[in-house]
Amino acid sequence: MAQQERAIRTRRAILEAAATVFAERGYAAATIAEILAQAGVTKGALYFHFGSKEELARGVLSAQVSGGRPVPQASKLQEWVDVGLVLAHRLPRDPILQAGARLTLEPEVRELLGEEGGTAWAAWAEVSAGMLAEAQRRGEVLPHVNPKETAELMVGTWTGVQLVSQFSSGWADLEMRIAALFRHFLPAIAVPAILGHLDTSPERGARLVAEADQQVADQG
Amino acid sequence: MAQQERAIRTRRAILEAAATVFAERGYAAATIAEILAQAGVTKGALYFHFGSKEELARGVLSAQVSGGRPVPQASKLQEWVDVGLVLAHRLPRDPILQAGARLTLEPEVRELLGEEGGTAWAAWAEVSAGMLAEAQRRGEVLPHVNPKETAELMVGTWTGVQLVSQFSSGWADLEMRIAALFRHFLPAIAVPAILGHLDTSPERGARLVAEADQQVADQG
Repeated sequence: MAQQERAIRTRRAILEAAATVFAERGYAAATIAEILAQAGVTKGALYFHFGSKEELARGVLSAQVSGGRPVPQASKLQEWVDVGLVLAHRLPRDPILQAGARLTLEPEVRELLGEEGGTAWAAWAEVSAGMLAEAQRRGEVLPHVNPKETAELMVGTWTGVQLVSQFSSGWADLEMRIAALFRHFLPAIAVPAILGHLDTSPERGARLVAEADQQVADQG
Repeated sequence: MAQQERAIRTRRAILEAAATVFAERGYAAATIAEILAQAGVTKGALYFHFGSKEELARGVLSAQVSGGRPVPQASKLQEWVDVGLVLAHRLPRDPILQAGARLTLEPEVRELLGEEGGTAWAAWAEVSAGMLAEAQRRGEVLPHVNPKETAELMVGTWTGVQLVSQFSSGWADLEMRIAALFRHFLPAIAVPAILGHLDTSPERGARLVAEADQQVADQG
């Protein structure tokens, strides 16, 4: 293995270990010692990649944004739904997303990182608003809908549903609850002609992730 | 002032002081010393009412549930909407609700208090499901709606929208965002004949609180 590739793998292992500890204990209670033990790397290796606990938090928060792209669909509004369904499938399986979700909600992280603490919400809301605007141009979204308002609502409501699912079932029912969220939202925003053709089933996220993984494998 | 009345007032002042500190700093970082300073009472008075920080948290969490009753309306579904709009008006003005919202989301509070940590969510979801079921019996809610599912979604989504509003504007836009939440939810649950008659305006919460206060004043 080339030296550069090894460095990338070590950095990723440290990030995932930090994410696991942050997700479990929160920012304030997490210690570098725990992250070292979780990662199984030396202190020197950790400090080579991340200078402080704060930098680890920044790394986790920016890693969560770099998720996969949605699988293209005939309907742009279906792609918008798919982003939420795929995330509902991935979060219970991905410590980076879990840590991101927790850190984004911690006031001390907001104080420490300022605007950066809310990067994932802002980035998601922007992408989401762009997809809704495009769906509206194509005539899939009702003309009175304000894409920015609906996109920000989706980010907020998705987050709240995620919290209820975490506390009530450790995320076991997240895909079901997010599917229900879309069933409740869509009649207010989709034109009647396409409403009945949108797939909001809880199993859709898993299928799309498998398809995307297969594409990557075919290309590699 | 009778001794009993004085004790009730002191207890309330301590609870509000504790709520202010919990809302600002969270459970773990809050100290009894800060709560004493905020309340302006002696250590003896505080410990007479609450034996520990844990008991203060319990007190705050149970105080938030004892809110006012909704003003009766011709439509039961309007009453259901009103609960969410009134809460959106009250939360930015009430440290007990702010502390409750924060403590309910803190994993260490859940660990400490167990089920009790989620009392407010569970109580709200139950009341909300009961109102939806009654609205459905009256023919105001579409027959395929599952009151429990929709009620739990409302509690989760309301919470998430509250968090986005807190971080983006310190709750200044909470009433506007919650009004938008109901506009997005209602077409999926209300029968078409009453959908156009439901009032989801952001100013409605303030008006209902003023009406309820006036009723109490008239009776007192």
